[in-house]
Amino acid sequence: MQKISLEQTIAGIKPLDRVCMEAARARQDTLTKPLGSLGRLEELSIQLAGIYGEVTPMPKSKLIILAAADHGVVSEGVSAYPQDVTAQMVLNFIRGGAAINVLARQAGARVIIVDAGVAAELPSDPHLVSLSIGKGTANMAQGPTMSPEQARQCMEYGIAIVTSEIDRGADLIGTGDMGIGNTTAASAITSVIANCPPLEVTGFGTGISEEQRRHKAEVIKRAIRVNRPDRTDGLDVLAKVGGYEIGVLAGVMLGGAAAGRPVLIDGFISGAAALIAHTICPQARDYFIASHLSVETGHTQVLKHLGIKPVLNLNMRLGEGTGAILAMHVVEAAARCLAEMATFAEASVSEKSKE
Amino acid sequence: MQKISLEQTIAGIKPLDRVCMEAARARQDTLTKPLGSLGRLEELSIQLAGIYGEVTPMPKSKLIILAAADHGVVSEGVSAYPQDVTAQMVLNFIRGGAAINVLARQAGARVIIVDAGVAAELPSDPHLVSLSIGKGTANMAQGPTMSPEQARQCMEYGIAIVTSEIDRGADLIGTGDMGIGNTTAASAITSVIANCPPLEVTGFGTGISEEQRRHKAEVIKRAIRVNRPDRTDGLDVLAKVGGYEIGVLAGVMLGGAAAGRPVLIDGFISGAAALIAHTICPQARDYFIASHLSVETGHTQVLKHLGIKPVLNLNMRLGEGTGAILAMHVVEAAARCLAEMATFAEASVSEKSKE
Repeated sequence: MQKISLEQTIAGIKPLDRVCMEAARARQDTLTKPLGSLGRLEELSIQLAGIYGEVTPMPKSKLIILAAADHGVVSEGVSAYPQDVTAQMVLNFIRGGAAINVLARQAGARVIIVDAGVAAELPSDPHLVSLSIGKGTANMAQGPTMSPEQARQCMEYGIAIVTSEIDRGADLIGTGDMGIGNTTAASAITSVIANCPPLEVTGFGTGISEEQRRHKAEVIKRAIRVNRPDRTDGLDVLAKVGGYEIGVLAGVMLGGAAAGRPVLIDGFISGAAALIAHTICPQARDYFIASHLSVETGHTQVLKHLGIKPVLNLNMRLGEGTGAILAMHVVEAAARCLAEMATFAEASVSEKSKE
Repeated sequence: MQKISLEQTIAGIKPLDRVCMEAARARQDTLTKPLGSLGRLEELSIQLAGIYGEVTPMPKSKLIILAAADHGVVSEGVSAYPQDVTAQMVLNFIRGGAAINVLARQAGARVIIVDAGVAAELPSDPHLVSLSIGKGTANMAQGPTMSPEQARQCMEYGIAIVTSEIDRGADLIGTGDMGIGNTTAASAITSVIANCPPLEVTGFGTGISEEQRRHKAEVIKRAIRVNRPDRTDGLDVLAKVGGYEIGVLAGVMLGGAAAGRPVLIDGFISGAAALIAHTICPQARDYFIASHLSVETGHTQVLKHLGIKPVLNLNMRLGEGTGAILAMHVVEAAARCLAEMATFAEASVSEKSKE
């Protein structure tokens, strides 16, 4: 993988192409349907035009980048599942048995699995990209989860991976995560960056009790007190209360934006990565599409802070990119309608009566 | 087409298969994901199991039945578009230039266009099924829109069409509509069956002004006063304030249910057809999937009365089956996850820790 620095990437993130957006908007109003009647599909199509810099862009190659890692904070008893599950699920992804594999086959998408720091030895596999950042983060309740160098390293790996895939043709990027304990990291990041009390942005994760949820929020409170992350500094927040997969995904988001490709942000964990990416480069937000609204309570605050609306709301909380892959159908629909529908003139359909 | 009576169809609508539903629910809890984390997808998969009578059903052949007709009530000035647009749009459907054509190509679905009573001569075409019920309904503000015989005829045509398509392999059915003036009919039906004041369930249709919307609600009020439809009698409501395409779609819904196939109800017009179908046979409701929440204000009341939740909410109000076809991606995803995901045992993934 070619190394691209974070700074170089940020410098490459341009404003959306307003000329193409205006042309797409104007074209929408000539298509054979009542004005505005495709609602969110029309908005998405205009965003896509601005991102790709084409009036009628047509994404052709869907990719999910699924980053997995372990979290030292699990030793505080914050998760309903044992840590082993992270590695076991990576093997499940490799064999094609997880929800994301099933949904990616349906959507005709590729899935790249990134071992961003799983605390186990994983086999070599053509579908698995293994990074050497660390084997699970440290426990945020006792100190920073990773060093500042590791935080930057995660992000630059994410940038390198997405850039290389885009160079090879991927043009619709979705993010996904796996990591026992990572809702704790996501809640901590959200609490810091969106400036909300931990309890308000701490959910039930994989299925803990209300008592365990309160304990989890206390652990996050302690982690924030111990580490004092600077909420205006994305790398600092990542290093102190983040996770390796979250850093990789934040890098994927910035790299996707720099390459002029839309990035479908999956759910809460990806949302926390988006908060970090957005703190580092607010402009990147215009390239983000919020796939769905997660059941995880903190996700609402994530989307509010980012100022983006979810495409779907299916009561899901699985991660892996399952929300992103489902939303890709809608994004593709948006692009196709803009590009392929007949205009009133082409179809000889009468336009709206003048009032 | 083989004629099947309404009564015979109603008699064929069985309760969902509870044994398969329980087995599907039990299987969901063994799949490699936190319990319940696929949210709506899990619920849909269990409904599908009950509908098909299989533990892991896999729909293979998607079909949209798009019924078009004209409405005499347009002479009251209730629409933003001239009546000609109905026939022009049917030609657009035949040529493949409308939103539903684009979205059906994406989804790999077939579209059958039914001329249920367009007030114009339409060409013969292999994609077009022409019914001889009437050429546009009468003006509901002055009397019934159609005769009781025509109301039954529409529904039995709908039943015949869907039954014949299911016999030929279609196993995932979506409804769609086209008809200038048909939001007026849908609002009138909703007002009567859901027992709401006309103004509350009358929206902006293809894009009228607030003043025109108030006029439209007044027209509906008059139609209800003149016709006195019996809200407990679906055929009576259809005959007095309905439309030919709405009757055909109500027949499609009952026929689909009788054949043990899920029916994706599109938006507001299809929702009004569902109200009629449900009034005639409440049991049919279990076979319905509400595709999306339309912008049309009356649609909320439709779904509330039916007691079903929309899959999508994309701010759309186009009809044609565009909501149904988009929701098919989610329904297919639900079926695939249930059938194809690995279980904890198969993937050697540890289950949730005992609390």
